[in-house]
Amino acid sequence: MTAIPGCVFCAIAAGDVPASMILRDDDVAAFLDARPVFKGHVLVVPRDHVPTLSDLPAPALGTLFAAVQRVARAVESGLGADGTFVAMNNKVSQSVPHLHVHVVPRRKKDGLRGFFWPRVPYADDAEREVFAQKIRGALSG
Amino acid sequence: MTAIPGCVFCAIAAGDVPASMILRDDDVAAFLDARPVFKGHVLVVPRDHVPTLSDLPAPALGTLFAAVQRVARAVESGLGADGTFVAMNNKVSQSVPHLHVHVVPRRKKDGLRGFFWPRVPYADDAEREVFAQKIRGALSG
Repeated sequence: MTAIPGCVFCAIAAGDVPASMILRDDDVAAFLDARPVFKGHVLVVPRDHVPTLSDLPAPALGTLFAAVQRVARAVESGLGADGTFVAMNNKVSQSVPHLHVHVVPRRKKDGLRGFFWPRVPYADDAEREVFAQKIRGALSG
Repeated sequence: MTAIPGCVFCAIAAGDVPASMILRDDDVAAFLDARPVFKGHVLVVPRDHVPTLSDLPAPALGTLFAAVQRVARAVESGLGADGTFVAMNNKVSQSVPHLHVHVVPRRKKDGLRGFFWPRVPYADDAEREVFAQKIRGALSG
């Protein structure tokens, strides 16, 4: 394991800081967020210190998201939720700079929807295509 | 490909409905959301019709999230963003019942933070542990 001194998620994943642990194996740890969006909100982290999704080594992608999938199923069935919200903040709004995937139980009419999908429309098709071209350029670059 | 008649994301992934395509291969398609949270907001979908993250077959997990990672890097570098928000709504708040991973460019002070992290605190440690036990029970069940 590559842990960083002072990283609270490294310390939780290593078992050195207490948390309500949901699962822990050689690669991944999952534990309850101490300040949940809704109760039962889990964080899934790689045990290695990886700052953001972009930094995750290719072999770790399948391992991490297999754990996220298992946790999402368990949050839904274990809590009798109607669904889940699964999300990562990379750099902006990321409170701890150790990649963590939020798995939040959702219920119909839980009031969350209005909170998080503001929309900024494109002026026209041409403007949309400019954005697409910039991203495609970065993909192939 | 397993496509479902009437599913707009199956149709976009197949090339039958136009979209600002970012990448498309045998397994995955990525295209601009027509109603972006911020301009340059991409949706990454499996080409097979898979309703939610829980339904994604194990071999497809690594493939899909490798594409999400590539797109997240490209959104950030191509648009000069400060970071990204990567998220899935499963069942609740899911507007199209075909798994889609949102990759949204983020900038410092873009105003989004206040929108989406309301918090519902646990009454005490004991209540938190009840939630952990329910989820752990579902994991091992």
